[in-house]
Amino acid sequence: MAGEPMFPRIALIGLGLIGSSIAWAAKRGGLVGHVAGSARSAETLAKAVELGFCDSVHDDPAEAVAGADLVILCVPVGAMENIAKSIAPALKPGAIVSDVGSVKQAVIAAVAPHLPAGVEFIPAHPIAGTEHSGPESGFAELFEGKWFILTPIPGASEAATAKLRAFLEAMGANVDEMTPEHHDLVLAVTSHAPHLIAYTMVGVADHMRRVTSTEVIKYSAAGFRDFTRIAASDPTMWRDVFLNNKDATLEILGRFTEELFALQKAIRAGDGDTLFDYFTHTRAIRRGIIEAGQDTAAPDFGRRPSKPGE
Amino acid sequence: MAGEPMFPRIALIGLGLIGSSIAWAAKRGGLVGHVAGSARSAETLAKAVELGFCDSVHDDPAEAVAGADLVILCVPVGAMENIAKSIAPALKPGAIVSDVGSVKQAVIAAVAPHLPAGVEFIPAHPIAGTEHSGPESGFAELFEGKWFILTPIPGASEAATAKLRAFLEAMGANVDEMTPEHHDLVLAVTSHAPHLIAYTMVGVADHMRRVTSTEVIKYSAAGFRDFTRIAASDPTMWRDVFLNNKDATLEILGRFTEELFALQKAIRAGDGDTLFDYFTHTRAIRRGIIEAGQDTAAPDFGRRPSKPGE
Repeated sequence: MAGEPMFPRIALIGLGLIGSSIAWAAKRGGLVGHVAGSARSAETLAKAVELGFCDSVHDDPAEAVAGADLVILCVPVGAMENIAKSIAPALKPGAIVSDVGSVKQAVIAAVAPHLPAGVEFIPAHPIAGTEHSGPESGFAELFEGKWFILTPIPGASEAATAKLRAFLEAMGANVDEMTPEHHDLVLAVTSHAPHLIAYTMVGVADHMRRVTSTEVIKYSAAGFRDFTRIAASDPTMWRDVFLNNKDATLEILGRFTEELFALQKAIRAGDGDTLFDYFTHTRAIRRGIIEAGQDTAAPDFGRRPSKPGE
Repeated sequence: MAGEPMFPRIALIGLGLIGSSIAWAAKRGGLVGHVAGSARSAETLAKAVELGFCDSVHDDPAEAVAGADLVILCVPVGAMENIAKSIAPALKPGAIVSDVGSVKQAVIAAVAPHLPAGVEFIPAHPIAGTEHSGPESGFAELFEGKWFILTPIPGASEAATAKLRAFLEAMGANVDEMTPEHHDLVLAVTSHAPHLIAYTMVGVADHMRRVTSTEVIKYSAAGFRDFTRIAASDPTMWRDVFLNNKDATLEILGRFTEELFALQKAIRAGDGDTLFDYFTHTRAIRRGIIEAGQDTAAPDFGRRPSKPGE
């Protein structure tokens, strides 16, 4: 591509949906020279080579980061601390280290203390993903038009932050900055609580003995199947999210339970006005999301064909 | 089209998403001769004429059903009783009357007592829809590959049931039969409880003062936006569903709350194994739905482009 790459060498530690998508997006844009990848399983490393999104693969994350100008940790939140310890001695002075963890305070606490001076740590989180996981699930367009949140820590280098921001923008992402604390609260609302709720509802359906699993599957189009998509997300990643964003998630779930009880009370009391007003209001929020370009206005996510003649 | 239509004249009472989709599907298949439509608002009637899915429109539902061989009530559950009373004197002897209400016991109780002898009432419910509503939201393909559940009442005519079934199958639907009681329990699991939960979570997000609505919208791709799609459904329809399937919905919500509390306890206690096992199990249910052809396997409902080269 045109001119010098932004980073001559990057290392991706973890080659699942996010790691492999970063590799594809960076290669497509000519943003990087060499992409070194590391993953725990030999199968994942072999898949990365087969699919061609890494130029070198390494069992040992320390080997992958040697000489890298940018290192991105793309492992579940619970694995961040051990990875940070392993790679610390091998990091190149001046290297930028980032991560893609869905929780920021816990990742900062797990990673920052282990990194040597002279390395710039800039925590990040892409608000992008699908319910699929693994090295074959990534694609270059994953970040296009989606948000990447940076949560810089006190004393972070402005130059390094700007450089990382430019890289993410070149992958098609919109970049935003906020404090780690605020990030964890916002994501508890837009992601962590909804995921736990979806997992729970799918679990309830599965446990209902008077309704067969065939029926749950056959009639899932009535709304339930949207929950199952969310509840099909990677179990390891989500276990770690909940264990590491405990306070904010429990706070939101507490509020959720209070409101659910209020609506249940309205149902029990036959209070149609309360229900109607509540549902009218939530409909308006959907419109805001579509207007902001964060979802498709197509009915049912575009699953359906449109009307003849349109 | 080929030969005689199945029904020379049908009447659709209510011309929203479902009513207009039935009209489009019936016309596309040459299943009907004349389509008479009735709706409460003059605007809806004008739209039906403009879009061309009704051959005649009528303010008065009794006028619409006069001479009709098949009458389908496509109004919110709470409006069924008054419609049944209005049309009863005008129904043609031998006519089949059906409905598309999301609740069956309450609709049967509201409609059956008012219908004259010699008319065949066959309650039905299509498991198909989108979050859009109104006469412009319908399309002929809505029922293709989706389930239509019949809940025949004691003494229902087998011939009339078979005739309605053939009509629905000709629109592309799969037809199933179950008791009204079982229907209401199954739908509480796959539809009613998930909708109330989605409405609640969207409401909670909206009420969080420490998280701005801009943030909720910007970062909705993290999971929340799937909830907003469900919570964008028609408020009148859903108010009536909850008021009319109170017992089953409250039972499922009770179970949901119990499981949610168990998972919250696991989060609080740092019990990662419980969370991991739960999430692994729910992932398998998603696979069942895709294998049964009830949803797309495309990542994120196919919102995303696929990987280059695929």
